[in-house]
Amino acid sequence: AGIMSLLARGVYISAFPLHDVSILIRQVLHEEWANYGVMHKYQPVDLIRKYFGEQIGLYFAWLGVYTQLLIPPSVLGIIVFLYGIFTVDTNVPSQETCDDNLNITMCPLCDGVCDYWRLSTVCSLAKASYLFDNGTTVLFAIFMSLWAACFLEHWKRRQMCLKHTWDLTSLEDEEVPYLRPEYEEALQEKKAKMKAKWKKKVLYLIVMTLSVCVCFQVFVTFSAVFGVAVYRICMLSVWSMNPDPEAKASVRMTVTTTGIILNMLVVLVLEEVYGAIAVWLTELELPKTQEEFEERLIFKSFFLKSMNAFAPIFYVAFFKGRFSGRPGDYVYVFSDYRMEECAPPGCLIELCIQLSMIMLGKQLIQNNVFEVLIPKMYRTIQEQKGKDRGGEEEMDEAEEKRSKQQFHKDFALEPFEGVSPEYMEMIIQYGFVSLFVASFPLAPAFALLNNVIEIRLDAAKFVTEIRRPDAVRCKDIGIWYNILCGISKFSVITNAFVISFTSEFVPRMVYQYIYSGNGTMSGYTEHSLSYFNVTNFPPGTAPNTTVSMCRYKDYRDPPWAPDAYTFSKQYWSVLAAKLLFVIFFQVKVLDLFDQGMDRWTVNAIKLKGDTL
Amino acid sequence: AGIMSLLARGVYISAFPLHDVSILIRQVLHEEWANYGVMHKYQPVDLIRKYFGEQIGLYFAWLGVYTQLLIPPSVLGIIVFLYGIFTVDTNVPSQETCDDNLNITMCPLCDGVCDYWRLSTVCSLAKASYLFDNGTTVLFAIFMSLWAACFLEHWKRRQMCLKHTWDLTSLEDEEVPYLRPEYEEALQEKKAKMKAKWKKKVLYLIVMTLSVCVCFQVFVTFSAVFGVAVYRICMLSVWSMNPDPEAKASVRMTVTTTGIILNMLVVLVLEEVYGAIAVWLTELELPKTQEEFEERLIFKSFFLKSMNAFAPIFYVAFFKGRFSGRPGDYVYVFSDYRMEECAPPGCLIELCIQLSMIMLGKQLIQNNVFEVLIPKMYRTIQEQKGKDRGGEEEMDEAEEKRSKQQFHKDFALEPFEGVSPEYMEMIIQYGFVSLFVASFPLAPAFALLNNVIEIRLDAAKFVTEIRRPDAVRCKDIGIWYNILCGISKFSVITNAFVISFTSEFVPRMVYQYIYSGNGTMSGYTEHSLSYFNVTNFPPGTAPNTTVSMCRYKDYRDPPWAPDAYTFSKQYWSVLAAKLLFVIFFQVKVLDLFDQGMDRWTVNAIKLKGDTL
Repeated sequence: AGIMSLLARGVYISAFPLHDVSILIRQVLHEEWANYGVMHKYQPVDLIRKYFGEQIGLYFAWLGVYTQLLIPPSVLGIIVFLYGIFTVDTNVPSQETCDDNLNITMCPLCDGVCDYWRLSTVCSLAKASYLFDNGTTVLFAIFMSLWAACFLEHWKRRQMCLKHTWDLTSLEDEEVPYLRPEYEEALQEKKAKMKAKWKKKVLYLIVMTLSVCVCFQVFVTFSAVFGVAVYRICMLSVWSMNPDPEAKASVRMTVTTTGIILNMLVVLVLEEVYGAIAVWLTELELPKTQEEFEERLIFKSFFLKSMNAFAPIFYVAFFKGRFSGRPGDYVYVFSDYRMEECAPPGCLIELCIQLSMIMLGKQLIQNNVFEVLIPKMYRTIQEQKGKDRGGEEEMDEAEEKRSKQQFHKDFALEPFEGVSPEYMEMIIQYGFVSLFVASFPLAPAFALLNNVIEIRLDAAKFVTEIRRPDAVRCKDIGIWYNILCGISKFSVITNAFVISFTSEFVPRMVYQYIYSGNGTMSGYTEHSLSYFNVTNFPPGTAPNTTVSMCRYKDYRDPPWAPDAYTFSKQYWSVLAAKLLFVIFFQVKVLDLFDQGMDRWTVNAIKLKGDTL
Repeated sequence: AGIMSLLARGVYISAFPLHDVSILIRQVLHEEWANYGVMHKYQPVDLIRKYFGEQIGLYFAWLGVYTQLLIPPSVLGIIVFLYGIFTVDTNVPSQETCDDNLNITMCPLCDGVCDYWRLSTVCSLAKASYLFDNGTTVLFAIFMSLWAACFLEHWKRRQMCLKHTWDLTSLEDEEVPYLRPEYEEALQEKKAKMKAKWKKKVLYLIVMTLSVCVCFQVFVTFSAVFGVAVYRICMLSVWSMNPDPEAKASVRMTVTTTGIILNMLVVLVLEEVYGAIAVWLTELELPKTQEEFEERLIFKSFFLKSMNAFAPIFYVAFFKGRFSGRPGDYVYVFSDYRMEECAPPGCLIELCIQLSMIMLGKQLIQNNVFEVLIPKMYRTIQEQKGKDRGGEEEMDEAEEKRSKQQFHKDFALEPFEGVSPEYMEMIIQYGFVSLFVASFPLAPAFALLNNVIEIRLDAAKFVTEIRRPDAVRCKDIGIWYNILCGISKFSVITNAFVISFTSEFVPRMVYQYIYSGNGTMSGYTEHSLSYFNVTNFPPGTAPNTTVSMCRYKDYRDPPWAPDAYTFSKQYWSVLAAKLLFVIFFQVKVLDLFDQGMDRWTVNAIKLKGDTL
């Protein structure tokens, strides 16, 4: 620990173990691991552990298990998607939407300038919506909950195996805590500076700062989401005034897409900012030991980053279009702009687009820009600097020789940042895969594709592009397992809500079994649209075209009923069915989840018993 | 283990350690423990452990913790009850029910012979209902969920302490399994009898027998519940024909009470039967070790006995009166008898009565008859036998002297049956206390009262009335902890459903905040009753009195609406609110429960850290 103290005091710039050059192991790792040619093979985890230590070995073992277990849901997700493609022509609601003979006139999408429109114009969107929102999606969501339980148990088993093989069982929890040298340094400095009576005040101040910062960031995240929403609302109304009919047709799609890209950029930038803030906050807390430091840092950054990543998706899934009011009584923001609504076939398709764009975009940009491009630039600059210096002062032979030595070469490499960022990236991906799988069955396939590349990319980074990390012994993946467990359980809840509130599964079922006379879906589209008497539009907001009635997507009483425009009996019965589904799904699937856990545990114990 | 084999073969009748007479310990236990005078003191658990062994020590320690922790919910439950008593006069719905000026004519409770009746005649029942079903009940149910978490964690802590004090930490799980002598005996017999190829068939047969038996018992339980319901239905309609008006008035109460007593007797008898069947079934399974035997027996008897004890209560809470139809379209059993309905102010009051009767009755009868009276009779008979023999053959002096020896005295005592029945009784009581606490806040107080007596009763039994048990070392209460955990989590679900579906909390809230114009409860009774046009009664079922409309408790459209007698908009909105409440309660309270668990665990760890 002496060298660490010196480092903390700034006597040395850095200290790191050297990369092996004499022994073959790095070479083997390069060929058998950090190579796209061996993608189909298992990783040489024992070798990784030998070279990098247990902590990194466990990370790659975990990543391997995760990637391997992503194969079944990927295949099943693609099957679900294909099922959607093959049965889209037999689907009654989307056919009805596309049927121009039904002659359904919808209420305008914006005030004044927008015209009434025919439902059949959103035919393709309705068909696309069906691809992700058909009966099999529910089964797939249930399967994914079971899968999450299996994944967690499978990993526990693998971890046990590794613990045994790597001889980590004797590693005690209650070792004498090893104080962080930064802590000791800072403590001594502070001791010198301040008296004891000030300590409490400072502690109080720190806690205050912390909570204010966290609140501020929560606020920033939500305002970012809201900002993008406002951008969409404004752009939509501005562009709608464009008289060119072609531009008008593509407005909605363009605004949605640019909105999502904007969202993604905000997420990416805020993620980096939040990472830095989390480190700063944790340093402010001045935790005693390295373990405590890491645990607090992980907790903080997980909280901030996951909120950042998931907030826009939660917004689309559960809030967008829920508070937009009804024709004649819209909700306005800034008293001028109407609250945004989802596209007519439901919010699910927007959720799909959002999810796929963020997943793809985040992974592509993070993998390419942050993990490949920036390090490369960093190295180029470093080399340039070295050359410049080399050009200015003529180095003597000894200097030049020294610069060729291994520690000099390694010093030019990027320092090792810890495995936490790697875990974080994967865990957030796991969140995308599990939390919203009910709306986007292709998510596991995307994740699989990314991870296959990610493993080799990370491998190459560890072997060639960063300084060799200190070998750290640890007996499990620690707090990350708890976070995984938490996400898995939370995903059951989100999936239940996505299926019942975002998708149209429940209203369709209710229609088929209660309101349709013959048990088929025919007439569903007609049934799901309410009537609006255009004379009830506030003056100035109605289009100039003359029709007597327009339709909008909601369950409300028609204008000729005694309580015009209040929620209808259908609305309440569908709501009850939705809530019933949520309860049923939660109880049933959480039960399956727990049973899955138990079953695996029992099997594992039996297996253990058999081998003994 | 040699003596056990001999016992199993029937060479000896029984083997047991003798009660101490020379040392003071039994005397001290008698004075300091098995004595109603020391009720307010803690039990001398160390002494109990010393005399009876760890298993029994742990049981009494657990019982002590449970009883002690019952004090806060008892006090709070009584406060909730008192709150009900003091505010009953300000409660609008029950006042409205009692108000004779509203002049509400209700539909008849039986076909033909029953007359229309005025709502104000059930005034006292409505008031009694309010005592158990007011706003504070919800808070109390939430409190009880938290309490359950605290109780479990508190016990874990105490167990840790005891483990440390009693030096049980070194007790290993993976000891060489010690085979039950009965197993060895039976195995050898069977080996001699049958060939290897028959084994599989026998195993198959055993599994078949098991499942058939269990199914049969499930059937018996449900048919018992159903049988009592049929008894009530029949009695009600037979007694209603009685022309005497006074008899008529008390019909409902009499039938309910006799029904409950019948139910209780059935439960008590079936419980003994099920206990015997569970033992028989487990012996049929022929488990290898004593631990396995006990675990399977516990699981089976817990399953059967808890189902038996809770089935009638579940019936009243969730099924009674839900499927009785509506006026003009009642549901009939055996095509003659109308399905039973709950009393007009709701099923909650019946649930209360059922719960209090079963809890009180079961505990009184079990404590007095099964635990005191029957052993006393047994001993009297034994003594009688001894005397008879003594009278017939003149014993010589040596014989007489031998019969006075300790082992002879002890042999006359009842054999020790294991702690499982004691645990079972308490766990089922815990089920009563936690599962339906939302409907009966006095349950913890009843349980507390029972337990204070139970501890001393059990103590007296152990010290004076049964043979001294073999001291068994065990490091925790084993499977019972898991069962407690399971009951606690399940209780959150049942309480959520009781509050939303059995009590009238949710409909009242919905009325107050949505349908009532001024935010008060006035008009609720009027609103919760639907209209029925008496001309729609099937011929022969209407009373002779002439009124045009009668009312019934349901949310259905009135006769003059387009869809007469279908569920109204109110029905669906109340249903949605009920389901929403269930979701909210479950998520929120399960979360609180888990947090409570975590908080205690963290505190326990901290405490441990501090003391180290």
